[in-house]
Parts: sequence; C-alpha cells; structure tokens
Amino acid sequence: MLKTNNCIDLSNLTLGKSIILAGWVANRRDHGNLIFLDLRDQSGIAQVVIDADINEELHKMAKSIRNEWVIQISGIIRERPEGSENPKLPTGYVEVITHDLTILNESITPPFEINDDITVDESIRLKYRYLDLRRIRMSNILALRHNVVKFIREFLNKRNFLEIETPILIKSTPEGARDYLVPSRLYPSEFYALPQSPQQLKQLLMVSGIEKYYQIARCFRDEDPRSDRQPEFTQLDLEMSFVEQEDILSLTEELYFNLVKEIVPHKKIVSPFPRITYADAIAKYGTDRPDTRYDLKLHDLTTLLSNSEFNIFKKIINNKGIIRGFTAPNAAHYKRKDIDGLIDFAKTYGSQGLMWIAIDETTSNNIEEDSIRSPIKNHVPFTEILQIASELNANPGDLILIVAGTEKITNLTLSALRAEMANRLDLIDTSVLAFTFVTDFPLFEWDDEIKKWKSLHHPFTSPSDDQLEKLQISPESITSNAYDLVCNGLECAGGSIRISNREMQEKIFEILGYTNQEIQSQFQQLLTAFDYGAPPHGGIAGGIERLVMLLSDTDNIRDVIAFPKTQKFIDPLFESPSKVTQEQLAELHLETIEKDNE
Amino acid sequence: MLKTNNCIDLSNLTLGKSIILAGWVANRRDHGNLIFLDLRDQSGIAQVVIDADINEELHKMAKSIRNEWVIQISGIIRERPEGSENPKLPTGYVEVITHDLTILNESITPPFEINDDITVDESIRLKYRYLDLRRIRMSNILALRHNVVKFIREFLNKRNFLEIETPILIKSTPEGARDYLVPSRLYPSEFYALPQSPQQLKQLLMVSGIEKYYQIARCFRDEDPRSDRQPEFTQLDLEMSFVEQEDILSLTEELYFNLVKEIVPHKKIVSPFPRITYADAIAKYGTDRPDTRYDLKLHDLTTLLSNSEFNIFKKIINNKGIIRGFTAPNAAHYKRKDIDGLIDFAKTYGSQGLMWIAIDETTSNNIEEDSIRSPIKNHVPFTEILQIASELNANPGDLILIVAGTEKITNLTLSALRAEMANRLDLIDTSVLAFTFVTDFPLFEWDDEIKKWKSLHHPFTSPSDDQLEKLQISPESITSNAYDLVCNGLECAGGSIRISNREMQEKIFEILGYTNQEIQSQFQQLLTAFDYGAPPHGGIAGGIERLVMLLSDTDNIRDVIAFPKTQKFIDPLFESPSKVTQEQLAELHLETIEKDNE
Repeated sequence: MLKTNNCIDLSNLTLGKSIILAGWVANRRDHGNLIFLDLRDQSGIAQVVIDADINEELHKMAKSIRNEWVIQISGIIRERPEGSENPKLPTGYVEVITHDLTILNESITPPFEINDDITVDESIRLKYRYLDLRRIRMSNILALRHNVVKFIREFLNKRNFLEIETPILIKSTPEGARDYLVPSRLYPSEFYALPQSPQQLKQLLMVSGIEKYYQIARCFRDEDPRSDRQPEFTQLDLEMSFVEQEDILSLTEELYFNLVKEIVPHKKIVSPFPRITYADAIAKYGTDRPDTRYDLKLHDLTTLLSNSEFNIFKKIINNKGIIRGFTAPNAAHYKRKDIDGLIDFAKTYGSQGLMWIAIDETTSNNIEEDSIRSPIKNHVPFTEILQIASELNANPGDLILIVAGTEKITNLTLSALRAEMANRLDLIDTSVLAFTFVTDFPLFEWDDEIKKWKSLHHPFTSPSDDQLEKLQISPESITSNAYDLVCNGLECAGGSIRISNREMQEKIFEILGYTNQEIQSQFQQLLTAFDYGAPPHGGIAGGIERLVMLLSDTDNIRDVIAFPKTQKFIDPLFESPSKVTQEQLAELHLETIEKDNE
Repeated sequence: MLKTNNCIDLSNLTLGKSIILAGWVANRRDHGNLIFLDLRDQSGIAQVVIDADINEELHKMAKSIRNEWVIQISGIIRERPEGSENPKLPTGYVEVITHDLTILNESITPPFEINDDITVDESIRLKYRYLDLRRIRMSNILALRHNVVKFIREFLNKRNFLEIETPILIKSTPEGARDYLVPSRLYPSEFYALPQSPQQLKQLLMVSGIEKYYQIARCFRDEDPRSDRQPEFTQLDLEMSFVEQEDILSLTEELYFNLVKEIVPHKKIVSPFPRITYADAIAKYGTDRPDTRYDLKLHDLTTLLSNSEFNIFKKIINNKGIIRGFTAPNAAHYKRKDIDGLIDFAKTYGSQGLMWIAIDETTSNNIEEDSIRSPIKNHVPFTEILQIASELNANPGDLILIVAGTEKITNLTLSALRAEMANRLDLIDTSVLAFTFVTDFPLFEWDDEIKKWKSLHHPFTSPSDDQLEKLQISPESITSNAYDLVCNGLECAGGSIRISNREMQEKIFEILGYTNQEIQSQFQQLLTAFDYGAPPHGGIAGGIERLVMLLSDTDNIRDVIAFPKTQKFIDPLFESPSKVTQEQLAELHLETIEKDNE
C-alpha cells in the first residue's frame, strides 16, 4: 500500500507515530515558512504541515501543489499548537509534520469546488460525476446505500433466505411499462428484453422448491422521462413459499424497522407500523400512499350535502361526483393572495377549483355567522356551513378547503393539497419516518381509456379468499391479497400473495382481456409450471433508491445513484445513448428509421 | 406460515412434539393400512405416516396423492419402529404420524423424475428448469453459490470496501468482445450498451476518491456461442486506490484461500499460492492457465536439436518453429492404437502430428537402444535420443511425447496433451484446488490477422515501471503489471495495476492503433478524469460461475446458473430471444432486416 493509515486514523493514533498518508489536497494555506495542506481521503481530512526549516526542497515542492492534486506524505503525528485546533474535525487536534512528500498526480482546476455548499448546475455535476462524488455529502450517500443493502442482505441471510441471481436477458413480456429490448445477433429479428422485475422468475423459483428467495435486483422500464424516474433502478426482490400475508408483513416490518434503527438511529420511527386498508387510505388521505406524519385528514361531504340547494354541489352530486375537504388548522388568517395560490395549485391537478371557508376567531370561541368568510357564504345557508365545519372538526381560526368533482380528480387534488398545506403550515416533523402498511387493495381497476379491467398490482396477485364467486360478476368489488409499505407519502415496497393455481390464473388473464396468444407467449412458462405442484407463495419488492432517499433526506433520485442518467435518460458522463457503427447494426440485422422518414 | 418446521428439523426435535410440515411428495409407499410419504422441502426429506386406524378419511385422501403434489400435514414426531430406520437420512430415525393433511396443490406427472441420478437430456432439464432445480444436487449448487457470494461480500465489507452499483445501460465501447446494444426509444438511432465489465466505471470511482470498491457485477458479451459461455455472467469486480500489485495479490489470496476453507473444507488447498511468471508458465505448461495439480512439465528441445540432421527437426527450426515435449511416466506400455489416438488428438489442435519415444523397461534400468520404440528411431541417432530423454527426465518405462511447429500451435497442443495424459494416467487429485498466480504478462501481443498490437489484458493495464523507454521501440518486450489467478487449468480472476496518467494512457491507445475519434468516443470520460487527480489504482475481477463450478465439481456452467441460456444462447423456458411486435419496433425507430433480403 502507498499509505500506512487513513486520514481519520489521526484522531486516535499516538503522538509521535510515523505514518504515511495519501490522498487529495483539499486546501493549501501558505504561511511563509510553513505550508498547511488539508489532505482528503475517503475517511476524512488530515492537516499536513511542510516546514521549510526542516526540508527546504519539500517546502519548494509543496509551494507548487494545487487543490485536488494527489500526494503521498510521510511524517510524524504531533499536537497542533495551542489556539490552532479545529474542533469541527475529528482530527482537528493533531497534524502531521512532513518528512517526505511525493506528488502522485496533478490536477487542472476543477470546474467546481469540491465542497458540500456548492450550487453548481446538476448537468455539470453529472458530466464530472467523478468530481461530484468527491464531495463528502455524495460519498456519504454512497456509503449509506452500501450499508442499507448490506443490512438487508445480512438480515435475510440470517433467516435462511437464498440470494439467487435471475437473468437480465429475458423475454419481452410487456406487462405494465414498456420493455427495453436487446436485439439478438444470432437470431435475426429476435430480441431479448431487460426485466421490469424478476416477477415470473421468482415465482418459478418457488415452484422449484426454493422456499425463501431474495435478490437485490436491477430492473428496467422504458417509461417516459420524469424527474423522479431512472431507466434502471434496483429493488429488494423477495419471495417465500408456504406463507400468508401476515408472514410477509411482519418480516417486512422487522426488516425496515431494524434497518432504520441501525442505519439512521437519529430518525423517529414507530412500531408496530400502522395499517390501513386501501379504502380507508383513499377516504382519509385521498391516496394509497398517505403521508401520515401529519393529520389534515379528509372528510367526505357528499352525503351531508346531498340535499344542498347550492347549484355547484347539486351539479356535482347529480354527475356522480364527490365533495370532500379538510381543515387546515390556524390558517383562517390566510390572505386572498395565499388562497388564490392554493386555487391555482388545485387546478394543476385537474380540479375545477377550490372552495374555502375561513373561520375567524371570535371572542365567544364559537363559530358565528360574522366570523365566516367564504365565496360560498352567499349561496349556502349558515346552518349548512356549520354542518360542514362540524363534519370537518373545524374551529374558529381554521381554514376549510373543499374540492368537488370526479372521485379521481378530487382525491388527487386533495391529497396534493394536504401535502402542500402541511408544508406551508410547517406541520411536518422531518425526523420522522412514518411507515404504514396499506392493505386490501382492489384486485382490478377499470381503465376507461382502453375499456378494460386492469390489475391494480399485477396479474399474479391473488384475490381474497372469500370472494371467488364474485370474480366474474363484479370484478370491481373484489379485494386482493396485495399490500404496500408506504413512508412519508412514498411507496416503499409492494407485494402480494400470488395465485398458485393454473385455473385461477387463467381466469384472471381472461378478465384482464388477454388473448390466448398473448397468454401463450407471455405466461406459458408460469402456467405450465403451475401444473407441477406450485406451493402457496407470496412476496414483496422494495425500491432501494427510494429507501436511500428517505434515509438520506434527499428528494433527488440521482443523488443516491453512483452514475445516474439525467431526467431525460441521458448519461452526460459517457454521452450515451449514442450512435453505433453501421457494422454493429448490420450484425444485428437492424436498420434505424430516421425521424424525417417517418 | 403454513408450517411450523422444516423437514430437516426432525433430526433434532423432541419425540412427541406436534409439528406442521409442508412440501412436496417425493415418494409414496402404500402398505395397506399404512401409507408412507417422503415429504421434501428445501431443507431435506421427512417420512410421514398416515394410518387408516387413526383416521380413515386421511388415509383415503393420502391414497390419491401422487409424486410432486404439494401437501401440508400436522402430526407428532415419533421414533421409527426398529428395523425401519434409514441411516442415510439425517431424519432417518424418526417419522411423523399424521393427524391432519391438506392437499395444497396437485401435480401432473413430471417429464422426468426428481432425483439426482437421472440422465435426462439437458434441453428437457432447461425447459422444465423449475423441476430440474427441485433436484437436491441442483438446489445445493444454488445454495453453494449463495454462500460463495455471501462469503465474498462479508470478507470485503469487513475490510471497508464499499459495494457500489454501476449502471447496466452504458455506452457502447467495443473493446474486446462485441457489445449487446439496447435501442433508445427517446433518441432515434441511438443505443445504450450492456457492460462487458464495469472497467471504466470502477476506474472513475477511484478518481472519485472511493478507495475500496467492489461489486458482484453482471457482465454481458455478445460472443459466438460455445459450450462454456453464457451471454451474461457475474464477476466479482474489485478496485483499490493507492495500491501496488502485491496488495491486490495478497488480498486476493486471502479471499480465495479463506473462502475455500470455509465453504468447501474437504478440498485441499496450499497457501501461499505458488506464483509463476507468464514466460515460465508458457515454458513449463504451454499455457498461461496451467493446471498444476500434476507435473508433466514441458521442456524445450529446440536448442538441443538445433544441429540435428533429422529433416523434420531441421525444417521446423529453419522456419523459426519450436520443438517441445514432456514425459508421461510409466506409459511406455501404450499400444499403437492408444498412441494413434493421441496423434489424432494432437491434430485437432492444429498440430502436424506428434512424435513419440517409448522407453521400455530394461533389466539394467538404463535406457538401451533396444528398449527404444519410436517412429523417429531410424532418423535420429541413439545419442540424440538419449539427449532428449535426459532433457525430459525420462526413464525406462516412460513415454516421451514431442510436438514441433509454430510456437503457438506447439504450446496449445502440448498444453492439451498434458491435460489428456494426466487424465489417462489418473494423475489428477480431484480434491485439490491448485491456485496459482501468473504474473508479468506481456503488455501487448501482435495480432497477425489485423496487423496490430493488441492488449493482452486490456488497454488500461500499466506497463512495468522500468520499461517505459521501450514502449515505442519494442512493444513486444514490455511486461505489464497484470496478473491472473488460475486454478486447475482455469482462469479464476485477472487484474492489473492501471494506468492513472493521461499521457501514458494516450500513448498506449496510440500503439494499439486507435484513431483519435475512437479514443474520443470511447475513452474521453476516462482521459478527462485523469486530468483531475487520478490516484494510483488497480484491481482484479473474478468469475463467479467459474469459481462455483470449481467448488461444486461440475464442468457445466449451466449447472451453476439458476436460469441459464443453452449453448446456443436460447432460453428454452421462456423461449427467448423472440419476435416482438411491430409496434415495439416502430417505437424504437427500428426495422429488422430479414435474412433473405441480405
């Protein structure tokens, strides 16, 4: 090794010890005869002193050194002179007085400073990712990610799970998102596909008698770019045989709870994880990914207002729409401009608008007609407003927000408004990780665009036992053995107890409108496997990036990936995707269609 | 859970304990009122008894059960009656007397029996891989693979390595083998590529200041099919900063040595691992992947025979060929038919033929003219034969094998002949894992086909320090800081200390004949990174499949992969690669060229 120690070791080595360090120059301070270098390696920073009185040659060499040069020094640890300690650094009480120095490599001036306070454009950071990762914040996230995955593996290994690698070159079975395809050179016009998840493969492993499988699995989805998406991502993929839903939930809870306790002990987490049914989550939060760090629960007003004379309410109810709302506590003081902002915000979610009722504080502490300000005040009798306020537990000083419209848009809008108000009212304790299980998902949802039933999770999800007879009659009413783990408004993991029976699986495909040919080409291997004794099985899959984002307090998915693509799925470091040679294309029996030929 | 215990638990649970088991019926034996089931789960086999006298209904149900049905039973552990124990099974002294039985799933008759002695065609095994993996031998290999990777991770984690995931969608940089390409839907005519290895990415991580990196990394090579190849494989990919060759070698040795001791303690392994230079390996074994489990070392006869009058020798030497051979001990009794077989074998490696000298045993124990049998006996004086025998340490009773020709073919042939003779003479101790480091590889080799210098490892390998001045003058004479770990004739791992300097890296690209444009498009990110303070660094990469093959005594790479492709890179289970829809192609801006249009 070109070094005997890491910089951080200085904090607990004996004074007077000879050591060799190597790393990057983070900073050079020239004090005449003394030159101070902050030497940075992966472990931290050490102060290195070059004294012209000890070695004039070294001092001369040190004068030439610039930031980010790579050097090796040998020297002796000594206390820093009184008054020059740096209590912010673990090594801040000592320094190395240099006896030898070698310049291992030079550096030109980096395009941005290597420190955590920079505000450089992300595109520059990604183009020079190798410099961006030198920043302590970034390398800490990489280390955190390592520790998260290490924890998961050790947790599951202890419980006799086998990690089994499944192939990356698989067959195109376009369920859910679009597949990335890989042309086969050996078989013209044929393609492999990259897995969206190892779903069928892990189920086949269950049929193989592997009773406890997991994999930290790379997954790929050729979806349209979005700022929180990447074309490839990593998930903890887990499957077990001879289990029921409760087994997977308790294992998952134990894993995530202990992981948080071990990796980010400063975070607050509650156990047991609360559980909520899908129906309840939609009712209370307008979403199946509720952020339960704050209250602001939704209440339905549709029934209450079913006899309202107010035209807008009438029209909505006649069109089978819903009216829902929640109370923002102590927000009655909101100015028109603030409220107009909220209305605009609501409209971005497709809502027609937003009704609001501000209840000013009164001396009596009761809600009085005079204390009400609202655009609907003139259209709705005071008693109805009191009923609304009562239903929403609103008190003087509070602001009521109401959205009316189709179920989907109303819930979407209110769910976003909840988060927005929680932020504005500073109701979020960011040290909390509010894990919650959502259960009893519907098996199907109606897709109005393609006029077909769609799986809410995926077509391998089993229906709840007691509802088999409803399968064909009222698909919308069937719940499933599917579950999600959500945290702070994000979906952390999702899974289900699977179908393990050919007949049931075929019935589900039929309801989903798959043709026989589609079933044959995409699912024949699984259906055939079910002929040979499939065990009852189920599992879960959890996103690694999202988990690391939660634990490291970043909302930028690219921060938790060593070499991410941009929001537009471009790698600015390697400059990919890129053109390839005609030779490569010819070997793959492919021609590209130029845009202007289309 | 649908079970309280695994089958194997029976071996150490208290008699009389109530348990619930679930698994597959491996065998059913009907003894009138008693039905015996061998129940198999991932842990092993347990004997289950259903007694008509206890429960007639269960007995009736059990009568219907067939092999590979999935059942759940509850019952009580009891001793097997005297005389009916099975000492071959860990659970062979006890059985479960069943009080309840549920059929969880049925199975039709499998296409082959689920046991380790089957001789079914591999294509059937792969098509029904989920049944093949039910065989104990196969699931044991999956478990072994899990344990190998687990050991590697724990070993490196303890030493503060960070596992960092590098992208699978990267840029096409066709060095070495062909890239698999992934068309971009968003950027017409542009492609990602799958990594042949994360080589440049891990070097960039070193420039990032990550000093100890590893990854169990999936790699992809679109090479021509061969029985020991797979389109995707997994390697331990490892890189360190501030290291010298010795650091990587000693870490690697510690890893592999301890891994073997832990995972396959019955295997014999020697430490320290012997080291041999590339030149020595070629001289003694004809290959840089020597199998050192047996002797049969090669000796050069070219100098000795440089003045030989024998026409064949003369011609070879005049054409700058070489003459080399080795002694097969106690093989003088070989019959003509055996020797003819060896000659044919030699020819398959491109050799013109094979010369042989059988030295029959004599009463004097000396080599006498009469005791020599050889086709060259009449062309070569006895003294020359004695010289050859002396050079090859041959004694009465031995068989000398000599090959003459170009260096490449001679070495290739002799290396294969060594292995063949070791097998025939039963010289191989299959319990030995003979790890050996090969060092001092040449930096370049001349590629006569493309008339260019080629990197023997890859273009990032650094030349040995003391030879920089020879770089341009005599590239062939330059050795490199590259090293391989070989075992039993297989390359287990390979690596090098890398170039970390832009100027040197550009000089190497220049010697390798890269155009500026190729350098720019394939390597600009690495060269630019070298401008910003690259640390000295090096690493190694080791094949996981090959290691598991060595440890599990299989020479079939498909046995160590859960879902492998065939020798022709087809997945017979999912039937991929496959056609995709015109819609998918159109979205990718691609047209396929039909074979007959070419």
